[in-house]
Amino acid sequence: MSMYKVTFRFESGESVETFATFGENLLEVARKSNVAIDAPCSGNGSCGKCRIHLRKGNLSSKKTRHISEVEFEEGWRLACCSTIVEDVEIGVPDIASAYRSRMKVADLSSTDEVKIFEHAKHQVEEAGIPLKNTMCVVEISMKTPDLDDTMPDNERFERALKQKVHSDIVRIPYSVLKKMPDVFRDSGFQVKAVIRQTERDVFVYDISGADEEAVIGGLVVDIGTTTVSALIINMESGAILAKASAGNGQIRYGADVINRIIESQKPGGKEKLQKAIIEETINPMILQMCRSIGFNPGHIYRMSVASNTTMNHLLMGIDANPLRMEPYIPTFFKTNALFASDINLAIHPDAHIILAPNIGSYVGGDITAGTFVSMIWNRPSFSLFIDLGTNGELVFGNSDFLMSCACSAGPAFEGGDISCGMRATDGAVEACRIDPVSMDPEYQVIGEAGTKPVGVCGSGIIDLINELFQCDMISPKGKFIREGRRIRHDKYGMGSYVLAFEEEAGSEKDVEITEVDIDNFIRAKGAIFSAIRTMLDSLGFDVSMIEDVYVAGGIGSGINMRNAVNIGMLPDIPMERFHYIGNSSLTGAYTMLLSTQAERKTYEVARNMTYMELSTVPSYMDEFVASCFLPHTDSTLFPSVEHHKIKQEN
Amino acid sequence: MSMYKVTFRFESGESVETFATFGENLLEVARKSNVAIDAPCSGNGSCGKCRIHLRKGNLSSKKTRHISEVEFEEGWRLACCSTIVEDVEIGVPDIASAYRSRMKVADLSSTDEVKIFEHAKHQVEEAGIPLKNTMCVVEISMKTPDLDDTMPDNERFERALKQKVHSDIVRIPYSVLKKMPDVFRDSGFQVKAVIRQTERDVFVYDISGADEEAVIGGLVVDIGTTTVSALIINMESGAILAKASAGNGQIRYGADVINRIIESQKPGGKEKLQKAIIEETINPMILQMCRSIGFNPGHIYRMSVASNTTMNHLLMGIDANPLRMEPYIPTFFKTNALFASDINLAIHPDAHIILAPNIGSYVGGDITAGTFVSMIWNRPSFSLFIDLGTNGELVFGNSDFLMSCACSAGPAFEGGDISCGMRATDGAVEACRIDPVSMDPEYQVIGEAGTKPVGVCGSGIIDLINELFQCDMISPKGKFIREGRRIRHDKYGMGSYVLAFEEEAGSEKDVEITEVDIDNFIRAKGAIFSAIRTMLDSLGFDVSMIEDVYVAGGIGSGINMRNAVNIGMLPDIPMERFHYIGNSSLTGAYTMLLSTQAERKTYEVARNMTYMELSTVPSYMDEFVASCFLPHTDSTLFPSVEHHKIKQEN
Repeated sequence: MSMYKVTFRFESGESVETFATFGENLLEVARKSNVAIDAPCSGNGSCGKCRIHLRKGNLSSKKTRHISEVEFEEGWRLACCSTIVEDVEIGVPDIASAYRSRMKVADLSSTDEVKIFEHAKHQVEEAGIPLKNTMCVVEISMKTPDLDDTMPDNERFERALKQKVHSDIVRIPYSVLKKMPDVFRDSGFQVKAVIRQTERDVFVYDISGADEEAVIGGLVVDIGTTTVSALIINMESGAILAKASAGNGQIRYGADVINRIIESQKPGGKEKLQKAIIEETINPMILQMCRSIGFNPGHIYRMSVASNTTMNHLLMGIDANPLRMEPYIPTFFKTNALFASDINLAIHPDAHIILAPNIGSYVGGDITAGTFVSMIWNRPSFSLFIDLGTNGELVFGNSDFLMSCACSAGPAFEGGDISCGMRATDGAVEACRIDPVSMDPEYQVIGEAGTKPVGVCGSGIIDLINELFQCDMISPKGKFIREGRRIRHDKYGMGSYVLAFEEEAGSEKDVEITEVDIDNFIRAKGAIFSAIRTMLDSLGFDVSMIEDVYVAGGIGSGINMRNAVNIGMLPDIPMERFHYIGNSSLTGAYTMLLSTQAERKTYEVARNMTYMELSTVPSYMDEFVASCFLPHTDSTLFPSVEHHKIKQEN
Repeated sequence: MSMYKVTFRFESGESVETFATFGENLLEVARKSNVAIDAPCSGNGSCGKCRIHLRKGNLSSKKTRHISEVEFEEGWRLACCSTIVEDVEIGVPDIASAYRSRMKVADLSSTDEVKIFEHAKHQVEEAGIPLKNTMCVVEISMKTPDLDDTMPDNERFERALKQKVHSDIVRIPYSVLKKMPDVFRDSGFQVKAVIRQTERDVFVYDISGADEEAVIGGLVVDIGTTTVSALIINMESGAILAKASAGNGQIRYGADVINRIIESQKPGGKEKLQKAIIEETINPMILQMCRSIGFNPGHIYRMSVASNTTMNHLLMGIDANPLRMEPYIPTFFKTNALFASDINLAIHPDAHIILAPNIGSYVGGDITAGTFVSMIWNRPSFSLFIDLGTNGELVFGNSDFLMSCACSAGPAFEGGDISCGMRATDGAVEACRIDPVSMDPEYQVIGEAGTKPVGVCGSGIIDLINELFQCDMISPKGKFIREGRRIRHDKYGMGSYVLAFEEEAGSEKDVEITEVDIDNFIRAKGAIFSAIRTMLDSLGFDVSMIEDVYVAGGIGSGINMRNAVNIGMLPDIPMERFHYIGNSSLTGAYTMLLSTQAERKTYEVARNMTYMELSTVPSYMDEFVASCFLPHTDSTLFPSVEHHKIKQEN
């Protein structure tokens, strides 16, 4: 069988090479090679999103209404409608490179990385919830056996342990039993045991010689549709030992949850998606974090996960199709019977995996965990919690009631669907200003001093769009209306603004935002604002009645709330009411792991939360359309928004 | 790297071909090819047991004191002292073919195969122990979800289940959760569940559509050092669905437990021995039984194991070395934390594995399970329980006390160490008589009518030796003292008796018993008799005080007790006191699986049993030497033993 070379070339200049057989579908070839090409329709040619550019060689491609004759001449094709017939080089759209799973292990010497967790712990303790869990290390001293005392190893251990912990039932799993003869004899029957003690029983996770260091590792994972974040913590002290983030490896099967569910329905689909999140995303993160701190992954004895309902179903390889089909029934809200060995996680096989509870198909554990750490359930005043993810979720309420809703914002807040977009990691522009006269930018890049920009993360895009608008460079509809050195129009008339020319940038191409990007972002912010309005209206509330707004998400820590209000993403209320609380799903999962009572409280918060389905509210679609404007078609909703910079200075 | 062809040729004419590299050790090559060559010293050249015969080609072999110059000339070598230098053909001693793992699935249409289990059930019930376990199938009818009832699948199931079983805690493992969405929707939310209900909780093993047949399979395994036997049963009815036996795949690493422990201490040894018993012995038996009855191995939800202490440690891959080193400490007597997935057994991954309890390093679960079904713990009169395995074990006592001891009988009762020996399966001579004048035999062969003899199983060997002795063909020391057509002497003067010439036999060679075989068997029977004497003496008992003797083991169902007494294997007491109870380890494990109370009672019996270490009794060695005689050096111990047939007839 002939194999042909397929080269995927990213706009950054980097490339991925692979081999394919005659007649293989190009979209499948890309997915197998870990090259993410957005294909919302999951490859049936209907959405037209999987555009690629043929740079060398030929493809056998069907004509489609999504590619004009001129474009076809220029080499544009849909990946899903093309098959391999010879060696080819394929230009891959920006989204593919923006999404690629670059794993990042955080530098914990920077206090910024740990501050947010210290703050969360402080708040939880202030709410009267002790930071205590059921895991601990105990030292066990046993009498050495002799011919007059021939009790077997496991009973000898149990007898000594019971003197320490006062429990009737001691459970010793196979993995520990297996270690006993060697560990006991090597250590002279003086050992340490990692145990979990509840009212029911004592479970023994591990044993080691008394001289060895025994740290109880815990793993915290936030599985976002686009981004996955993780921590390794010391379960006894709560200290954060390592932190990492990476793109969700499932992205090549679809940018949003619906497309991933569709993909999971194909033969072997559930297994493929489970493998992508576990073996290709979480396990490599675990191993890289462990390597960076010299920690044995087998010493991670417990794990907590916060993720949306689709993500936690796909993580477990459980059919997620009922989530998108009426009556939208999840397999579980919560489960306490999941262990690391069930899903091949690269930690201790008996490690229990606790999941932040779902409350429905569209509001999952990421939101319940986030709501818990936002503490809005613990205050009499009305607060709004907003999680800016691929799905935007809102929770409104106080200590008496909590109402949630979800809207589809798309991946724009995490840099997806934006040609220059990227996650909030090294090389990302996280804040910027534009001089209203010269139209030249000033920007702040994540990373060491001198790091050149590679792209723009969510907070940077908010700033950028606000500045373009304030400088009258774009219209309220997001179209370029001024001319200048940094403003370009391509031959189809599409405008763009160059934030950094190739020579200023850290990549091999300009960092540039196009009208399509701006349009995508305006839809994302419009989805959030219209959801806020619709939910509050339905409850008979007005935005002025919101005491506090907690904004969460991996949008970048430098989110400028003023700018977010200016572009009509957040309601126009006094600035001091806004609080950015970082990745609250991760923080919530962290508190659940660290504190048994926090875990229980999160279940309680979830149980008391109701859900409003926005699509059943007739006014929602009108609200959304009216919100796809800078700041809004109804400018009276944004009374405090400053008039354009250029006008002020005139 | 050159590979050389190595052909192992068994005396039956069959052969095994494999390939080896230059310099590879021949014993290792044989082991890798599943050719069992006995090597008690585990390959260091000291025992001289791994003799093979070089038939074609050359080996590089060290000279050793175990091979004379003449023998070396004739092609005899020690496998452990030989390495591969070219293509070779190797004649393999009889023991290797006798031990080969021929798996046999029993024909259950024969009532003999099931009678023994029916009898055991009857006795257990008569003792007031109900044949009830905690497993059952329940039918669950759930309300189909709709937009007004969006409870997730697992809570919906739990709610419906709790209406049936009245338990506060329902545990749904990952494997069941994963099936829910499909099973519920395919069956219209009408399902069957396989559950286990205890006072603590309800555990859900499996779910299926209400229309599907749901049989709760249970697996019973007796792991002997030489032979493994297994049953698949219906846990609700107790019916035996399939039965199989096979050689223990570990045999190629040593014939007895000590050599296997030594082998397990080599790098990778524990894994190698665990693989030999699980992947090469038990899993193939499970699959073959399941195939024969069209049963899904995933529907086996619980398993019970009876085996000696070394076997159950090696089964679990647990270091068995402390078992043979003072102070002889097992890792466990019992454990309730072993599941099928822990050791890759090819049954339902959540299946609980219960082990008949050990009571020490040398008396294990095979004996406690056997003692339970012997019912000797339930009678005021004194009984003796004898398990004739590779280790012979005895239990003596009544409802007030139980004393056990073990002696090393070797594999002779199961056909090992005997050139014509074989397990009690098709082709085995299980009973025979010899005409005192013509010295021609009459024999009974296991299998369909007309099956030709291939070898002799334990019960046949007892008959054969008794007949040879009764006909004055052998001396009390087991040497041939008559001449005849069927009696031969080889060039070294070793005598033998041909039970079946090649043309009468089912194999390509004569079925023949040699003086070496007879000597091996006399040592085995001597070990048993001297152990009985020593234990009873120590307790101040006389054989006449034994009311009942229960003889167990895979020796063949036709054991002739009179003959066993005649050769001095069993004490000379009235015949009606002897009872053959078959493979009591397997029957005991069967009752433990079927009845929760029988399981508890077996633990209790084990806890109350004491152990006598024979090697610490000074008189034991003298007793043994005196017993290695037909019937015994002290003939007053066997007053009723008939005088020789030939004399009677004169």
